[in-house]
Amino acid sequence: MERIVGRIPVLEALRAQKRAPRRLLILEGAKGVEAIVDAAPGIPIEYGARQDLDVLARGVTHQGVVLEADPLPVHQVETWVKRPFPANAVVVVLDGVQDPHNFGAIVRSAVACGAIAVLFGKDRAAPISAASVKSAAGAMEYVDLVMATNLARAIRALKDAGFWVAALDARADTVLWKADLTGRLALVIGSEGKGIRRLVREQCDLHVRIPLQGPITSLNASVSAAIALAECLRQRRDTGEG
Amino acid sequence: MERIVGRIPVLEALRAQKRAPRRLLILEGAKGVEAIVDAAPGIPIEYGARQDLDVLARGVTHQGVVLEADPLPVHQVETWVKRPFPANAVVVVLDGVQDPHNFGAIVRSAVACGAIAVLFGKDRAAPISAASVKSAAGAMEYVDLVMATNLARAIRALKDAGFWVAALDARADTVLWKADLTGRLALVIGSEGKGIRRLVREQCDLHVRIPLQGPITSLNASVSAAIALAECLRQRRDTGEG
Repeated sequence: MERIVGRIPVLEALRAQKRAPRRLLILEGAKGVEAIVDAAPGIPIEYGARQDLDVLARGVTHQGVVLEADPLPVHQVETWVKRPFPANAVVVVLDGVQDPHNFGAIVRSAVACGAIAVLFGKDRAAPISAASVKSAAGAMEYVDLVMATNLARAIRALKDAGFWVAALDARADTVLWKADLTGRLALVIGSEGKGIRRLVREQCDLHVRIPLQGPITSLNASVSAAIALAECLRQRRDTGEG
Repeated sequence: MERIVGRIPVLEALRAQKRAPRRLLILEGAKGVEAIVDAAPGIPIEYGARQDLDVLARGVTHQGVVLEADPLPVHQVETWVKRPFPANAVVVVLDGVQDPHNFGAIVRSAVACGAIAVLFGKDRAAPISAASVKSAAGAMEYVDLVMATNLARAIRALKDAGFWVAALDARADTVLWKADLTGRLALVIGSEGKGIRRLVREQCDLHVRIPLQGPITSLNASVSAAIALAECLRQRRDTGEG
């Protein structure tokens, strides 16, 4: 059982119907929750006091709404990668993005830019939590979440499935906007401090950087990811792929 | 007097020398603070217990370092706008971005993408706080912070100074990547929930949107801003302006 916390995440979890909802908790007297109630036909609804929701939300801002539901399905990369993929599919691979807010924010940008999946390592990635689901603002429900025991091996499997693998790496020679990011693409994002690990980086076909200027030469990991994802979207629109 | 909290913000505040440092507080036994101490010649340093730093940091993660310094200079738009500007200057205008983390994150992306100033309204903008300075990861020290009593009037002043003013607006007809964002440019960003206010929006020369797809059609305000700022950078590099 997972708890989904906050109005947008709860509404999108109900709309996406990717997991069975079990119980909806609403703050007594909460206003503007009609859309959420309408999206929950047949689901038990309880009205509770603020302190009850605070306890259930465990520190995540709940905006008067908590949903208990089955966990999000998490795919194993070995089976997931065998499915058919569109010729222009984009997937995101996260290497060591541990902060749940960054994890959630990247999922949100990935879905908004048309990516179909987010892959992450079993050990080093941020867990799927109420905090990351909240930061994803509903997007977690609309993307395949794919776990890999070994991320370097997962990238080889993606290549076998016809993906071109591009690593976002501040030390790369190629500027993001000069690289061809059309076709079936896997975009690899590292953690903010450490970047992409060597064994993962070495598996990538291509390494690209955002050519920053001035005294501040690093971006938040979720911001870097969004800029690269937006570039994938731009190139797809230009070639009529998007 | 302001308190700057966290290692990167403190280090950049010392390096940028934009404001006089008064007192540096370091956690007793903290490791890896040599660069900070080296950047603080002649500044009184005190070593304190964790609880002392916790109190000074007021909830912001301090990583064992707090600097007390004069406040960051905040310019008034009426005088600031009279200075000479480079032909390719980029400035960011924030309309109602109230969340300090978003405010700081946008400043960070702005500086990394080469913007020279961030303008904000007196009433509705996020204050410059320890939290926003922390989220900016040092970038707050390297940008002109410009306050406007009336943002619509400030935009008219920017136009008089030769800026082309582009609003990022989800309802715009023009796709971001099809707009000409070269030359002297002011990029207007609204709040995540409400967007840009009508009176501000009407002053803009151009309205552009990021053409999102799929079930999630909104981005975090700081992510939207970063994508637009990266596009400014891309177009400048393509035309040799950057």
